[in-house]
Parts: sequence; structure tokens; C-alpha cells
Amino acid sequence: MNRHSLRLTALAVSLALGTALAADKPAGKSRSVSEIIEASTADDWRPLDPENTLYMELPSGRVVIELAPAFSPEHVVNLRTLVREKYFDGLAVIRSQDNYVVQWGDAEEDEAKAKPIGSAKAKLPPEFTVPLDPKVPFTRLPDKDGYAPEVGFSNGFPVGRNPKTRQMWLTHCYGAVGVGRGNEPDSGNGSSLYAITSHAPRHLDRNIAVVGRVVQGIERLSVMPRGPAPMGFYAQAEQRTPIASVRLAADVPENERSHLEVMRTDRPAFAAVAEARRNRHDDWYVAPAGYIELCNVPIPVRDRDAKK
Amino acid sequence: MNRHSLRLTALAVSLALGTALAADKPAGKSRSVSEIIEASTADDWRPLDPENTLYMELPSGRVVIELAPAFSPEHVVNLRTLVREKYFDGLAVIRSQDNYVVQWGDAEEDEAKAKPIGSAKAKLPPEFTVPLDPKVPFTRLPDKDGYAPEVGFSNGFPVGRNPKTRQMWLTHCYGAVGVGRGNEPDSGNGSSLYAITSHAPRHLDRNIAVVGRVVQGIERLSVMPRGPAPMGFYAQAEQRTPIASVRLAADVPENERSHLEVMRTDRPAFAAVAEARRNRHDDWYVAPAGYIELCNVPIPVRDRDAKK
Repeated sequence: MNRHSLRLTALAVSLALGTALAADKPAGKSRSVSEIIEASTADDWRPLDPENTLYMELPSGRVVIELAPAFSPEHVVNLRTLVREKYFDGLAVIRSQDNYVVQWGDAEEDEAKAKPIGSAKAKLPPEFTVPLDPKVPFTRLPDKDGYAPEVGFSNGFPVGRNPKTRQMWLTHCYGAVGVGRGNEPDSGNGSSLYAITSHAPRHLDRNIAVVGRVVQGIERLSVMPRGPAPMGFYAQAEQRTPIASVRLAADVPENERSHLEVMRTDRPAFAAVAEARRNRHDDWYVAPAGYIELCNVPIPVRDRDAKK
Repeated sequence: MNRHSLRLTALAVSLALGTALAADKPAGKSRSVSEIIEASTADDWRPLDPENTLYMELPSGRVVIELAPAFSPEHVVNLRTLVREKYFDGLAVIRSQDNYVVQWGDAEEDEAKAKPIGSAKAKLPPEFTVPLDPKVPFTRLPDKDGYAPEVGFSNGFPVGRNPKTRQMWLTHCYGAVGVGRGNEPDSGNGSSLYAITSHAPRHLDRNIAVVGRVVQGIERLSVMPRGPAPMGFYAQAEQRTPIASVRLAADVPENERSHLEVMRTDRPAFAAVAEARRNRHDDWYVAPAGYIELCNVPIPVRDRDAKK
């Protein structure tokens, strides 16, 4: 008898996105996420746009970030400039704070000695929210949210909206990538970035510019040893993880690119994913939640190169 | 000029619980968590009960778990039996799944070869919820929650309650410790435990027995390399982190104990902590959230041995 299948494995079975689970359940409302993915069609997926995809190369491998220019257009433009001028190459992950963020950029504390940002702008308008644009698709999640009047998904990103103030913004769910800034709202420029590696710190929403999210490789960041200095900064250079390079996918030869596809968030397949996680019907659950919080909705990603 | 104090540090300043921050802000509604802790009195804190405190000794150091017998009495009794009979000594962390859980116990999959559980019970009643007991203090959080009709804090634990069904339960916030089980609701016995190292998987609430929470050392678990097998299990023995021992604090000599204190959750100091995080008033924030989600409320812990 397999003890893990009895005592341990069942705990997480419906979180194992994309793994081959036994598909012996009836189709319909009780489908698991894996079964929904299995039954999805090509139309349910979209490839990443190479102009909006970053590859950060770490010793442990590649972290793939999808950018969201609809939500922080000037930040994305500046970030592309920094990346194309190889700003991040040779810099490092400088901070890992438990249940919060990993942050990367220049470890140099002295502004005069810091790496120049080249032709990138030093200051940017605070794109913490942007005007609600009806041309940006929005699939609303019916479940209530404490941090925003409306939440849902726009082109694969978890977002908040306020119809009264006519604002929309990217939310700080696990894997969100944002732009560090000082106390001045216009002081962020993309030269220091962070990724959320924790329970979603949604209080950051509308207070800082989010530029995208990690779609593959977040675990390369989330396991980084927590820094011993206050707020998880590393005190010594040798504690920092070096960044070999950050590249825009468009600038990487085709045969070196990652070929990821993200499930479209405006189609029934994705709605079924959310419902499968809102009310679990597999044998393990005795009390389906009947609710799902924005940051608990998985946004499936698959690797075209890994397909059979 | 210190670039980090400008661009980076401000991001997280109010998360740095217990670190010595500059206390040059006026007292009152704009106090930070650190300032509230600084101004707290001895009555605002309680020591851990040695009969309800576990020390898990890992190569990286000690993980301290506070047990909550009010919420899972039979599980806690069984766990004390397992620990007192040294069940966990020499076992290992067998799983680390990104944005979900770390799990420990016996890696042996063959039930016949598994380590015997001694005089502990093999099955326990499913204490996924317990009858709402008015003798258990409950300080309700005014903020709405999607997963439970009422949420708040009982003796330092984040809990959910349903006054209609007259049930209460421990919630799966970051650091929660639960008891792995199979599909049969009574199949958990405490020999396999997990800790939440992710965005809170609140859909597990009311589906599995939570026995307590990690009050110190969760970062020793959350950085563990994710396991390569499905659901984060480690495939090879050498990938697993060995557990030197798990002890009840009551069985550890006084001079080897950790002397932690948890902020009492039924007093004004803790309400001030929640409010400080609900509405940030420091200079960095431009849009206070006006809301706080249960699992984002920090429950301050301090180390009496570390005090000046």
C-alpha cells in the first residue's frame, strides 16, 4: 500500500497544475484543473508576446516575466530600455524577505558609485493605477474582494478596478513584479524590481507600479535564503545571487526562447478553472469553500516545448 | 546618499516587525507596528505554554510551533504522544511545493516498512472544525472575509467562525501547521504534518485538522528547495532535510528553551497593530487600503532572550 497516496498526496492533488492526474472522474462540474487543461483547445491559450517577455538568467536557471504595458506603459518602455542596454547584467538579487518579496538591481548604496541607467529615464509618472480603459478586456470574478470594488482578469493578469474613480491596476498576487521606489511617488524607474514571494501584500496595490508577473521560475526566487539585514537585505556580496543577464525575448534567438502559453482568461475554460478551485468536488474535500479569493485563482501556463 | 533608503527600503518598512526603526513619528493613529510594540506593556504579551510548544530541530536551526488544543484537542494529545515517544527523530522534510506547503514525516511509502507510531492512535476524529465554544476568547476582525462568516483571533491564532452552524476553526494562514490525511476524514493522526509556506490556501479550512502555527523559524521551512516529484515531493533521500528531533518545550531543560512571547490578541495594542496595517500612514503610502485581510494581520512574536 502506498502510504503517500493515502496520507499525504491527497492534500494537494488539485494544485498540481499540468501534472498527469488520473482522469477517471466524470466530466462536467466536477472536473479538476488538470482535466480542464487536458480538455482545452488551442483557442484557450495564447503565446507570450516576445516584446513583453523578459528572461532573467540566474545560476539556477531562467525566470520568465510577462510585462503588462496596458497597466504601466511608461514603466514598461523604460524597463525595455534598461534591458536592451544590458543594465541588469552582472547585478544581483539583493534582498529576500520572508513572506514578502525578493528584490534585484544594484547593491551599491552610494548613488555616485551606482551603475548608470544609460538612456533610461530616472523618474517616471506614478503608474500605480491607470485610467480604466474599456478597450482592455476584463473578466470579472464574481467573488467579493476586500481591497477593490471589482477584481478579475485582464489578458492573464489579476487586476483590481474601481468604476467610481475609473481606475484599474495590477494586484500584488504571488509572482507579481513591481518597481521599487523611494518616498517620492515618481522615484521609481525600473532599475530596482521586486517579485512577490508570499501571501499577497494587497495593501501595496495602488501604491507602487506593478509591471507584470512571473509566469515561470518563481520558485527560483522564492527559495532564496532570507537576508540577515533588516528587511531581508543581504549584508555581504557573497550572499547575493548574481544575475547573468536579463533579456527581452524578442532579442533572444528563436531557438533559445521559452515557448510558454498562458490560458486566456476571457474564455469558458478559465472560468471552469476558477470554479473548480472555488468548489472542489474531488473525493478528498468534505467542505467546498464556495468562494475563491483573487490571488488563489491559478492562471495556467504551459510550455509548448514540453508538450508530447 | 544612501540609495537603498531612497529607492528600496521604503517598500517594506512597516513589515519589519520588531526591528529598531526610527521612532520619530508622532504617537497616535499614525503609529507603526514597531512603535506600537515599543510602547506595549508586559500585559500585552503572553509567554508560550511549554505543554503546547514544539521545537523541531533542523540542520538550519529550530522551528517553534505553538499548538492550539482548543481547536483540535485529540490531535494535539496524539501529537504530544508521538513527540514524547520521539517519533519524528530521524525522519525528514519530505516535500516542498512552491506556493503551497512543506510537509514532514516518514518518507517510507510502504506502510509495512513505515516507522511505527507507538502508543499514538492511528485514526482520530476529524477535528476540521470544533463546536463554537464561548469560553474560547474571540476578538473579531471587523473586515469582511470571503471564506468565513466571521474571522478574528483566539489566543493568538487566526480563526474562522460560523455562528449559524456553531463551528469554529483554525485558518490556513502563512505558517499554519496541519495534519496530513488521506481521503478518509479520520485518517490523519499527526505522524505527517505540513506548514503553509504560501499565499493562504483558505480552501483547506474546514477540510483538514490544523493543530497550531509556526511562531518562529518559518523561514527555515519556506526556503527549502521545491521537490522535483509531483506536488513537490523529493524523489531522493539526499534531497530531504533531516529532522534531528521534535520535542515538547516542557521536556526540554529550561536553559535550552526558546523564551518567546506572543502579543495578546484581545487587547488594544493588537487592535492598534491591525489598524496600523489596515491604514498605513507613513510617508511612503499614497493610498491606504482601508481594509485588512485576516492572513495579512501580523501576530507579533518577541524573543525574551533577545531583549536588551
